[in-house]
Amino acid sequence: MSPTLNFERMHTRIGALAAINRLEDGACCRLALTDADAHGRTLAIGWMRDAGLNVIIDAVGNILGIGAGEGAPVMTGSHIDTVASGGELDGALGVVAGIEVAQTLREQGIRTKRPIAVAIFTNEEGVRFQPDMMGSLVFAGGLSLHEALSSRAHDGVSLGEELQRLGFAGDRPCGTPRPCAFLELHIEQGPILDRHAESLGVVTDLQGISWRELVIDGVSNHAGTTPMSMRHDAGYCAARIVTHMRNVARHMGGAQVATVGSIRLLPNLINVIARRAIVSVDLRNTSESRLREAEQALEALIAELQRTEGVRISSRQLARTEPVVFDEGVIEAISAAAVNLGLPVRRMTSGAGHDAQMMARICPTAMIFVPSRGGISHNPQEYTEPRHLEIGATVLLQTMLRLAG
Amino acid sequence: MSPTLNFERMHTRIGALAAINRLEDGACCRLALTDADAHGRTLAIGWMRDAGLNVIIDAVGNILGIGAGEGAPVMTGSHIDTVASGGELDGALGVVAGIEVAQTLREQGIRTKRPIAVAIFTNEEGVRFQPDMMGSLVFAGGLSLHEALSSRAHDGVSLGEELQRLGFAGDRPCGTPRPCAFLELHIEQGPILDRHAESLGVVTDLQGISWRELVIDGVSNHAGTTPMSMRHDAGYCAARIVTHMRNVARHMGGAQVATVGSIRLLPNLINVIARRAIVSVDLRNTSESRLREAEQALEALIAELQRTEGVRISSRQLARTEPVVFDEGVIEAISAAAVNLGLPVRRMTSGAGHDAQMMARICPTAMIFVPSRGGISHNPQEYTEPRHLEIGATVLLQTMLRLAG
Repeated sequence: MSPTLNFERMHTRIGALAAINRLEDGACCRLALTDADAHGRTLAIGWMRDAGLNVIIDAVGNILGIGAGEGAPVMTGSHIDTVASGGELDGALGVVAGIEVAQTLREQGIRTKRPIAVAIFTNEEGVRFQPDMMGSLVFAGGLSLHEALSSRAHDGVSLGEELQRLGFAGDRPCGTPRPCAFLELHIEQGPILDRHAESLGVVTDLQGISWRELVIDGVSNHAGTTPMSMRHDAGYCAARIVTHMRNVARHMGGAQVATVGSIRLLPNLINVIARRAIVSVDLRNTSESRLREAEQALEALIAELQRTEGVRISSRQLARTEPVVFDEGVIEAISAAAVNLGLPVRRMTSGAGHDAQMMARICPTAMIFVPSRGGISHNPQEYTEPRHLEIGATVLLQTMLRLAG
Repeated sequence: MSPTLNFERMHTRIGALAAINRLEDGACCRLALTDADAHGRTLAIGWMRDAGLNVIIDAVGNILGIGAGEGAPVMTGSHIDTVASGGELDGALGVVAGIEVAQTLREQGIRTKRPIAVAIFTNEEGVRFQPDMMGSLVFAGGLSLHEALSSRAHDGVSLGEELQRLGFAGDRPCGTPRPCAFLELHIEQGPILDRHAESLGVVTDLQGISWRELVIDGVSNHAGTTPMSMRHDAGYCAARIVTHMRNVARHMGGAQVATVGSIRLLPNLINVIARRAIVSVDLRNTSESRLREAEQALEALIAELQRTEGVRISSRQLARTEPVVFDEGVIEAISAAAVNLGLPVRRMTSGAGHDAQMMARICPTAMIFVPSRGGISHNPQEYTEPRHLEIGATVLLQTMLRLAG
């Protein structure tokens, strides 16, 4: 009665993608719309055809494999591009598992009322072309096709030119077929499931992200001869931002996180007070109003430091996305599928961005997470136990069946 | 009755030294025992002879010009080597003004009871050969001649070899003649006289210096998915050290200063919690016990951060000198000379190291400071108004007369 996925085939296909342009340290390097990415696309299109899916390519290079059935499809999918030194699973899992679901249903003669569709979105990572999550963003109508095709890599080539060169400039308009629901299976890329020794998460929302770069201009001076009261120390102001935003996040509690991952001082010498500090601030929350509160705390601190420390601080927004709340109906379908399989499932927030957050703009959407060992991702050390991948794919299958009828 | 210095000659000679190997941006580059330094030495020896001084060179290359008189000389002097991109005045002022004092006394027929001596110490800056203040340190018996001659530059050449090559490996033993007092005229290299619009300082002491490099090892993780409570953030710990040591210095007050001039984070990315931070800590005080107190506060913080933040911190001492207190008799002679000229004089501490601090080991010593515009030194922007240089030289002359009888 209940279909069984071919896990061996699923693991083999993940391995086949990972083997393309694999680096010496084991890292996967399939930057969007490079030859390596094209190689992966060609492999995946073959698997889609094996699964009986009708493959179409849209104008931004998204690949859609669509099964038989009536009405708007239930869609799953993810991406197969990677960062410059990535792991095997980020993106690839959701694509390969989606194809496996379609192929299993076909092989085991199970017909759904609605079509099953599997999407491979172009340039999710955003390393070579900006913005990230580009293919799903264009699909959801959040970015014009023209802007996407005009995006240029550091070497000057445009995304549109690369699509043409590699043969992935499709003829279908972006955004069709519009699904009735979207599901994405992905590794967590965070530590929570792993720390709690849990196998499965249902993602209820995604953090909003606020990235800023602050340039603090003080006055360079001699570390020995400049009294503490006469200093305009850019490095001290940078440190105040780090400690203050940590306190803000701790005090706000809940989903608020604050990170200063990058600090550069000039001249960066032991005996010279820094004249300039360049500091990144990464703020995230699932609540837009709380995220704004954190941003306001940063602004207030900037004003205070300018007043009390005699420095000049310029602030530039590098990225800003609002939080996304997923559809309670799809969340419920995932949870019910898991419970039906006897699997406990954790409701959780995603700290990373995913194609599903773009798809949530146009249809009911949610995500399934499986653990990342040590929370490590974007790194060749990225790893998830095979049994967790299998649990994730099984819950994806069961949820697709529930939603496709 | 009162001798008058030839200021025009003094300024011309300072300019002549500055013109040697001057860089495009106006910087002076006479690194110790390079051809440029040798050129400066040759010029200065000529001026010493013009001043009627008997020139001797000791085994570490210190140049001593000794006038007529009986008993231990009253010595003044400084250095003529520079950093790689230095100003006109650091060191050169004290040497040229000392020679000017000797030449003026000779030209105006004024004989002192004790001899006047002018010293040019080898390698004060310590850029090419370590340690810094080398010539005066060997002269004062704080470093063996053998160690000094064995010190090697980055290109492998030893100081002894360069002395031989350039003809400055003298035959006189280091440390003779032992002066009865030592005086050094120098630019402040700090902002205090300039900020107070004062012309003259008498240096009563020199800060002790404690330099440490801390390597903080935490855990790299995703800035979005890692809850605040699960972080081991090396960058945060670095910032805590910066803000805490500033608070310690402010709270201790007095002469205590604390500076973190250098911070390097790894991987230094906006959305990755730093796994490693390398931080410099520069602590200075004129009181050894207070300096130790500041060092202990740093150690206590390191222990606390290791305990509360789950990081590992290793700490390496890069430099450590004890404070030096100058001789109250020489300080008094300088102050009296200034008062006699109707010049207000500020008692102050030196935040930078000077040859005088080495000479203080073997004879009564103090220093005369003139302002540095903006406190800027070790920089082509280094500047002192000519009238301040003249005031400094005049006080040097009058103090030498008082001490030499």
